[in-house]
Parts: sequence; C-alpha cells; structure tokens
Amino acid sequence: ARTLSMARGEKGQRKRIPRGTAELRSHMAEAADRLPMPERRDFLLRGLAFAGATAAAPVLAAEGATGAESLPPHVPPWTRSLGAGVASRPYGAPSEFEAGVVRRRAPWPMANDASSISFTPLAELNGIITPNGLVFERHHAGVPANDPGLHRLLIHGMVKRPIVLTMDDLVRFPSVSVIRFIECAGNGAIDWRGPQVDSLQFTHGMLSCCEWTGVPLSLVLEEAGLKPEGQWVLAEGADGSGMTRSIPIEKALDDSLLVYAQNGEMLRPEQGYPVRLLNPGWEGNTSVKWLRRLEVGDQPWHQREETSKYTDLMPDGSARQFTYVQETNSVITFPCPEKPVREKGRYELEGLAWSGRGRIRRVDVSLDGGITWREARLKGLILPKALTRFSLDFDWDGGPALLQSRAMDETGYVQPTLSQLREARGTESIYHKNAIHTWRLAQSGEVTNVQIE
Amino acid sequence: ARTLSMARGEKGQRKRIPRGTAELRSHMAEAADRLPMPERRDFLLRGLAFAGATAAAPVLAAEGATGAESLPPHVPPWTRSLGAGVASRPYGAPSEFEAGVVRRRAPWPMANDASSISFTPLAELNGIITPNGLVFERHHAGVPANDPGLHRLLIHGMVKRPIVLTMDDLVRFPSVSVIRFIECAGNGAIDWRGPQVDSLQFTHGMLSCCEWTGVPLSLVLEEAGLKPEGQWVLAEGADGSGMTRSIPIEKALDDSLLVYAQNGEMLRPEQGYPVRLLNPGWEGNTSVKWLRRLEVGDQPWHQREETSKYTDLMPDGSARQFTYVQETNSVITFPCPEKPVREKGRYELEGLAWSGRGRIRRVDVSLDGGITWREARLKGLILPKALTRFSLDFDWDGGPALLQSRAMDETGYVQPTLSQLREARGTESIYHKNAIHTWRLAQSGEVTNVQIE
Repeated sequence: ARTLSMARGEKGQRKRIPRGTAELRSHMAEAADRLPMPERRDFLLRGLAFAGATAAAPVLAAEGATGAESLPPHVPPWTRSLGAGVASRPYGAPSEFEAGVVRRRAPWPMANDASSISFTPLAELNGIITPNGLVFERHHAGVPANDPGLHRLLIHGMVKRPIVLTMDDLVRFPSVSVIRFIECAGNGAIDWRGPQVDSLQFTHGMLSCCEWTGVPLSLVLEEAGLKPEGQWVLAEGADGSGMTRSIPIEKALDDSLLVYAQNGEMLRPEQGYPVRLLNPGWEGNTSVKWLRRLEVGDQPWHQREETSKYTDLMPDGSARQFTYVQETNSVITFPCPEKPVREKGRYELEGLAWSGRGRIRRVDVSLDGGITWREARLKGLILPKALTRFSLDFDWDGGPALLQSRAMDETGYVQPTLSQLREARGTESIYHKNAIHTWRLAQSGEVTNVQIE
Repeated sequence: ARTLSMARGEKGQRKRIPRGTAELRSHMAEAADRLPMPERRDFLLRGLAFAGATAAAPVLAAEGATGAESLPPHVPPWTRSLGAGVASRPYGAPSEFEAGVVRRRAPWPMANDASSISFTPLAELNGIITPNGLVFERHHAGVPANDPGLHRLLIHGMVKRPIVLTMDDLVRFPSVSVIRFIECAGNGAIDWRGPQVDSLQFTHGMLSCCEWTGVPLSLVLEEAGLKPEGQWVLAEGADGSGMTRSIPIEKALDDSLLVYAQNGEMLRPEQGYPVRLLNPGWEGNTSVKWLRRLEVGDQPWHQREETSKYTDLMPDGSARQFTYVQETNSVITFPCPEKPVREKGRYELEGLAWSGRGRIRRVDVSLDGGITWREARLKGLILPKALTRFSLDFDWDGGPALLQSRAMDETGYVQPTLSQLREARGTESIYHKNAIHTWRLAQSGEVTNVQIE
C-alpha cells in the first residue's frame, strides 16, 4: 500500500506534507483512492441536475412546449418598461450587482496606502484580459496626478542626441500593441513560509494582463543615437518615489515598450499615465510607471529598488540581484476560496498559467496533491508572456481533494514544487515565488489555502 | 494627361466625384501629382523635428549629458509628494485628463434616448480591444435593470428536454473566450446618401471589439436535445422591446455563444447583463442582449426587427431579408476629423479593418482618392471576425490628400467602392454600408468627411 507521506509523484520526487496533520494526510489518501477520474470524452453535461432551474421555474410542458404558454409566470418589471437611455453613462461602469468585484488592498499591515498594493480579483475574471478598472496596483509613493501636457520623457546618457519627448512626440512614433501580463515580483510573497490567506485575490492577485500599446524602446534609442558603449538603461518614474531600475540593453532592444495605452484607451493613472515602461515578462516594478527619464550607461546603477529591495536572499547569505524574469507559474481559479463548489456533479476546473520566458506549452492538474496528474486543455489564445487559461473536466463526488496545477513553458521550464523551490532558494526570499500552489477542497465544497512541499 | 474626374483606379473602375466641386477635383489632382510616395524602408523618424520638445524643454547639453544637470528645471509638484493611495478607487477610472474620451449619443434626431445609439470614440482608441466603458450602445427600449439572481434563460420549442437555466447553471457549462467585433448593421447608415458628419466617432463608431466569454450555444442545444426538424432559433431579450431575431441553426451550431463576460469581467448592463447571444461577425442586433428565451423552430419567425427593420430595400423595390453578415470594411483612424495632422513630417497612418466572414488578409491605402494604392502593414493580432489594425508610413508634405483604405478578407472579398455598392444595392438602404470611406486632408491639416463614388 502506498504511504502517502512518502509517495512519489510522476517524476519520482518525494512528497512531504510538512504542515501535515493527520487530517491532511487522510485527506490525500481519500483523494488518491478515488483516482484516476473516469475519462469522459464528451462534455454534454447530461448528468447535470439543473437544480436552480427546476426549483426556480415552473415545470415546463414536455415536448412541444412553445411560445407564451411555457414562459415563466413572473415577468419582471424591467421587461415591461423603458430602461436607461444611451450614454446615460458616457463612460460605462459595471452593474451594481457586481459591486463586490473590486481591487482590494493588502489585508496585512503595510506602511501606508501610498506605498502599498491592491490586488486583482482573479477569481471573478474570465478569459485572459484584465479590465482596466481591476488591474492590480503597486505604488511606492502613491499615484501622482501627472498632467500629460506637462509630462516630458528625457532620453540621455550614452546617446548621440539627447532628446526630450512630449506625449505628442511619443505617440507620433510607430506603435505596436501586444497582450502581455504584468506581475509584481512579490506576487505570492505572503505565502513563502506558509499559507496565510484563504483567497486567490491575495495569493496571486498582483497579476494582470492587458493589451498594451506603445513605442518600441529600441526605436526611441535609435532615434537618440545609442552609443556602442551603452549597455544599460536606467528608467526613472515621475512619482514621489522616483522609482528607478536598471535594464540591460539586450532587453531594451528586444521587446521593451514605452507604453501609453492599455486595453485600447490611454493608461490609467494607477498604471503610469501618461507613459510607462513595459518589460514584458519581467518583474513588474522594472516596468517603471509615470516614466520621465531614460539614461543610457555602461553599467547598472544599483539603485535602492535593486539592492535593498527586489533582490533574493539565498540560503548561503548572498543575495541574487537583477533576477528579472517572472518564472513560469500557474494557479487554479475555480475552485478556489472565493469560488467554492456548491454541489456534486461535473464542473469545468479552470486556471491561469503564465511565463516570463515565452508561451505556455502545457499545464497538468492534480486532484490528489501531486500524486497523479492529468493534462489540462489550454483555452483560447496562447500568447508569449501573456496569461493563458486552462481547464479540466472535473466530476466532483463530494469527497475532499487537493487541487494543484503545474505549468510548463515553451522553453521546457517546469513550475517547481515548493520543496524544489526551497532547496534552490531557501526560506528567506520574498520575490519570485512560483511554486506549485495547492487548494484544499473540503467535503463541504469550501476551498482553503494549504501547502504541500 | 490624366483627367482625374475620369481617372481609372487599379481595377479600372471609373472614378467620379459626385459632390465634386472644382476645389475637390483640384485637390485630387494635386494629390496625384505628388505620388508615388518615396519608399523609405527604415522608420527611424530621424527627420522628425521634435518641435514640442525643443520648445518646451531647455536645450540639452550635447553629447555626454548625464544625470541631474540635464533634468528640466521645472520639477512638477506630483514628483515631490505622495499621491493617491492604493484602492482609493477600488474599481478604477480613466484620468481626468481623458474626460473627453466617451461614448456620445447620435447628433441627429432619434425618437428618444431609450431607443437610440451611442458611439465608440474610435479615433481615441489603440490596438484592437475596446475598453468596456467605451463599447457602443444600441438599445430599443433602454437598458433594463436586470437582476442576475432572478434572470432565467428558457430553451424550448423543437427540443427533447425544454430547460430553464439560472445564471449559476449557465456559468457551470464549459466556456470559451474569443476576441470578436460587434458592429451595428446600421453603422455608417447616416452616410448612405452623402457625408453628414465630420467625425469618425459618428461615421463608424457603432463598432467595438472585446474578448467575450461564454458557452457555445451548440452545447446548450445539445443539452436540451435539439430535434432534427429544428432549423431556426428565435432569440428574445428581456428588455422592454423584447428584441427578437431568428437565427439559422447552422450559425447556432457553428460559433454562436451565450456570453456572460466581456474583457474579463461580467457583461456591462448596456451590453446585455447578465447574458447575451453573440453571433460573431453578424449584424449586432442578432446578438440579442439580456437574453431570456431561445425557441427552436422549423422556420424563421419574421419578427418586426427582421421585416420592417434590419432589411435592405433594393433598387427593384424588393427587400433583402436575413442579411446577417457584416461585410468586409475598414476605415482610417489617423488622420481623421478628430485627429488632424498638426505639422509636416512623417507619421504613421493608422486604421481598422474587419470582416464578418473571417480574417483580414490585406489592406490597401490610397492617398489620392483611389487612383493609386499601397499595401498597408497589418499590426498585432489578426483574428477572425475581430478588428485588425493596419498602418502605413506617411510623409506629409503639407499638401492636400484624399485618404482611403480598402480591405480584403481571407475569402477574397474586397471592400467595394461606393459606386459598386450603389450599383448593387441602390440608394434606399440603411444597413450594411461597407463602401470604401474617404477622408479629405486639407492643407491646414484638418480632416473632413467626403465621398468619392
């Protein structure tokens, strides 16, 4: 008989449950006993009991029911009157019934609201686009009230022709539009040492994905006449923190953009209006907002936000610096703490995967805490450095389960287990936590945040 | 010498300028004399005079300028203070400096605001996504205050198992997410007989493009047990107008969706909250909003909105009915009336192309009213039945021009000239105006709406 506390996964890694109580172990054992799931190739939902429907609506006439005689007896008032006129909201807003779908500030103590975080409600989202009103925020000195008419972008240093661009100048350059995620390097930081919050919004919500429009940084550097000795670019923001990060010239000439629009419209104030840097796939804070200055130099500047912060303290006491790439990661978005399961039956388990290294190639899902895995479907667009949605047919029999997802990107990089991540990086890190995440689905249908090494 | 009023285009069509004054003809002649444009393969903008920059910023130290000494003397107050905290707007909004980027109601008389139109400000948009706050509106009885908890979707008629779905039932089905445009069949109607408005927003703004998430209609029909004799589906909305359209079963089983989300979040009230039909590429009003009923039958229902409205009066007095597909179309979005050209120099001319028949394959641009054409670049994602952005390098020498775009889709369909459209359809139509559109760029840089047959 398989000892779950010593069970080996697909790749033979030893599975430990460090915070494992007897309850958690029996939980996994039960889940494993019920596997593998039946392979049903069709997804017709014929087994679905339309409980809500049959409870709430009159019994329909059987075959041949047509027209008025089969309409529900209750005809709501809004079907019998004129509603709000066009452009009653010239710029629209969500339904009042969606008032709970908002960004939320960190539930743990932060210095103040100006240097803080608000999180995207990932559990409530669909597809891969994050609507602009829900894009996460990470500010170091709050949102400056930047006037686009007064804003200037200086490009100087090791260039032949230092230039200052107005916004009119910038938008005149040829532009490109790309769908890319932005993720704070600290996404998941709160969970490094153990699960803290039963909330997808707070475990993974420093993550959003938009269509960004801007000018290739390479084009502007070419216009300024980049000198051969220019090997780094310093990006500086116009907020009170003067956020500054050093960017290697290879990235600047590859896919960095000077972005002025998101999801079609001009940048939101919280995302850097009127112009931000976008370094696709890299730590969010390198995508400096309210960008006012780009200096070209021959070495990095070692600014505060790349020395005391945004570095990774390793087990040997050294610190990793300039760890720009947001590694391959994934999370299950349904079921999750905010979206429990309400009754037995078939569901579409869903999740998001992303990689700062390129496209997602494959996602596997485990229902038993990593003992067995099934390959998920990748849904919709699969774009490089963008959120990619995956799903798996999931027949819930009412038993407990430990839900995990494991993403692989096109370079072959596989999302690590928590053990693997800790072996490489210790336990003193804050940033770059991309370990396989575990949701515990209880018999009640409730979902909580647990960790399995 | 070429007589412009009788000039022949690339395909030899006769070019007439019906509303042509001597001025307009001389305009075209001047434009033609300056063609073809120089072919510059690089786009380094070295010729750009950064007028705004040099006027507004201090002269920079020449080579070697670095750091603080080259910063503008004026340091705005928002760079020296704390800005707004995170989640000060839990659901965000655009910058106050973007207050003019809004939907606008039709400037011509409509019966009332409840049965009217508001238009998307296409001139202000970037990329292909329309942000939810700016998606155009076309209502027939206003926006109902639909309560998602009370909303029901009835599927009945020629099905084996009539069902009533709650929203909880519906979102439990497997979903798909696609980026597709929605266009009102009446987009451009105001211009059928001659240019009426100098505004891209009002000539083409009944057009938006979002990432939509929903359940394939085919899946729900399968669940209900579609009978073989079921050949049509009637879709009915829960607004005061009870909007109803007949959809052939082929479309319903192909790519029609029951959509509950747009650009990641739940549908906006104006777009059919909590559920609408989406018939990708078809007349917008077949994508019935606030969807409450789907009835399967063996023939169309000939409802009001597919007999007295949404039909096309032909020259012989007959009417085309069930002309669902939004034909291949395109328009230049810069320069346009809202976005004139401010000085001589190089620009990136931009536009949008779309086809209800599939992907855009090619767009040509003319600067001389259709005498000569150059192939535009297609930018970013090229998705079926989605907006596709195109651009062309454009050196403006300060002379007049007649700007046109002509799209071709993957089926080989080419956007017609106004003459071709009128030859086929007469002048009494309202819907499906997809003729090549002309902007007149004056020496002042201003852009107006003109027509060239």
